[in-house]
Amino acid sequence: MAVYTEVAAEELDALLERYEIGELRSCKGIAEGVENSNFFLSTERAQFILTLYEKRVCPDDLPYFLGLMEHLAKNGVNCPTPVHDREGRVLQTVAGRPAAIVTFLAGYSLGKPLPAYCRELGAALAILHEAGLTFPLKRKNALSIAGWEKLFAAISGSADRLAPGMAQEIGAELEALRKDWPGYLPQGVIHADLFPDNVFFLEGRVSGLIDFYFACNDLLAYDLAICLNAWCFEADHSFNVTKARALFSGYSAVRRLEAEELAALPLLARGSAMRFLLTRLYDWFNTPQSAFVKRKDPMEYWRKLKFHQSVRTPSAYGF
Amino acid sequence: MAVYTEVAAEELDALLERYEIGELRSCKGIAEGVENSNFFLSTERAQFILTLYEKRVCPDDLPYFLGLMEHLAKNGVNCPTPVHDREGRVLQTVAGRPAAIVTFLAGYSLGKPLPAYCRELGAALAILHEAGLTFPLKRKNALSIAGWEKLFAAISGSADRLAPGMAQEIGAELEALRKDWPGYLPQGVIHADLFPDNVFFLEGRVSGLIDFYFACNDLLAYDLAICLNAWCFEADHSFNVTKARALFSGYSAVRRLEAEELAALPLLARGSAMRFLLTRLYDWFNTPQSAFVKRKDPMEYWRKLKFHQSVRTPSAYGF
Repeated sequence: MAVYTEVAAEELDALLERYEIGELRSCKGIAEGVENSNFFLSTERAQFILTLYEKRVCPDDLPYFLGLMEHLAKNGVNCPTPVHDREGRVLQTVAGRPAAIVTFLAGYSLGKPLPAYCRELGAALAILHEAGLTFPLKRKNALSIAGWEKLFAAISGSADRLAPGMAQEIGAELEALRKDWPGYLPQGVIHADLFPDNVFFLEGRVSGLIDFYFACNDLLAYDLAICLNAWCFEADHSFNVTKARALFSGYSAVRRLEAEELAALPLLARGSAMRFLLTRLYDWFNTPQSAFVKRKDPMEYWRKLKFHQSVRTPSAYGF
Repeated sequence: MAVYTEVAAEELDALLERYEIGELRSCKGIAEGVENSNFFLSTERAQFILTLYEKRVCPDDLPYFLGLMEHLAKNGVNCPTPVHDREGRVLQTVAGRPAAIVTFLAGYSLGKPLPAYCRELGAALAILHEAGLTFPLKRKNALSIAGWEKLFAAISGSADRLAPGMAQEIGAELEALRKDWPGYLPQGVIHADLFPDNVFFLEGRVSGLIDFYFACNDLLAYDLAICLNAWCFEADHSFNVTKARALFSGYSAVRRLEAEELAALPLLARGSAMRFLLTRLYDWFNTPQSAFVKRKDPMEYWRKLKFHQSVRTPSAYGF
């Protein structure tokens, strides 16, 4: 959550001259998004977000991300829409970085989402999945099983420092996930990172989904499993069945889950827990303690993984 | 430039209920101000900044800072005005920190201010000095000579690592400054940190001054010397006489500089260079290299100090 690159006002003025969005009134670096530098822009006409893509986003992926946001916005998803300049371009270069201006969304993310919000989220996720079906570009999920194995190789020597035996257990779990992974389930565009800070609410309704920079093509039900982990556990690590029911009921009201997807949910939830466990472990061992970026606790996802390992059927999730 | 503390939306809603400024539409942490956490708030009615005061601001000083902003805003200075809640209070507690909501100012700071902007800045500084004369509270400048000596004691053992002989030269300069410091000059409220990032412009005019958390009572001409250092040197360290002339001419058009103030400017400029040299040296040796906060280059102010030491009369500044 940071601004990694400063942009001089003079460069902003020059940038805005290429657009028909009015003259600059205000520009503030905002602490939103872990991967990029984001600025809140205000012109005479409207408000926008300017994003500078830093090194963790591959420039080759930008046409996918920006094209996807535009496609989704046109198809009923409340998400930032890239703004075209006078020549029709969306991608710019600002301060030596690839950059884009997108529309501003009202609303704000919730610290402690109530069950009613989980239902809203479920519906928004399903709308995203439906809208994504007609998006023509494809992007592989770099953080699926092959990616997990790479991350595991990088941290397997260190994991036991956090919990004795963790490395061996992760290795065994990865093997199980690889063996049983339900690659036959319905695929499509997934957000892949729909945590509460990427969902804006206004008056109890979802007003916007943001941060599509992990979006990719993968199993739709896996996206739901990511939300199950991110939205339905309490701060004390307990699993909130009411929230899980609300999430699924909101989702199912828009897109019917197939019986196979439902049956695979415990495994998908284990996979999702594994994905965030591994990236958090990697960051834990590779971010200096004195660095400003706050490291997220890997043990939170270790506990979630254990919980899902104990689940045999989706009925344990309350549905 | 960071957000040190997160505020849950639920806490923000509760905070806004105490005010008559409308319901929350958006809240974004912004990268503005080094010392505090700042949030851009948008309600149905207007835009605001919420500031949470972190440990580097002494809570006892907040009535001075907030009272000053209110006083200045009422007296012709474009600066954030603290918003009163329904009970008339300005100071709140948010996430365990002292906090205040202030009005939002349009405009943005310039990366490379042209001479015309220096003239505007000079006028804005003089207006601030005039408006401050009727402000009843007092605050000592913690970063004047006694403060410099404390900082020097903390870094004198390390300074030579940056430039051999630096410690001895700083010691000698501090003695000269102490001996000749012109404490008899006109005093009043000074901003004390009016760098380009604390001055907003809109269509060529100053639209706002921000960040009053170093403000104090001290020599008015010393504030001008701070601006001389902050605004009139180029990136290649050369001194821009045209900008200096513009700065002084803008200032003098509003508040006439006394002959004694003018004569003391070379010394005040050395003092101002010393103040920022010492705080930058302190931060340089006490901020881990891996920390996210970018350390500012002390050598920039070492060069400025040398420049002013070579100046015998204010005519060397071009006036």
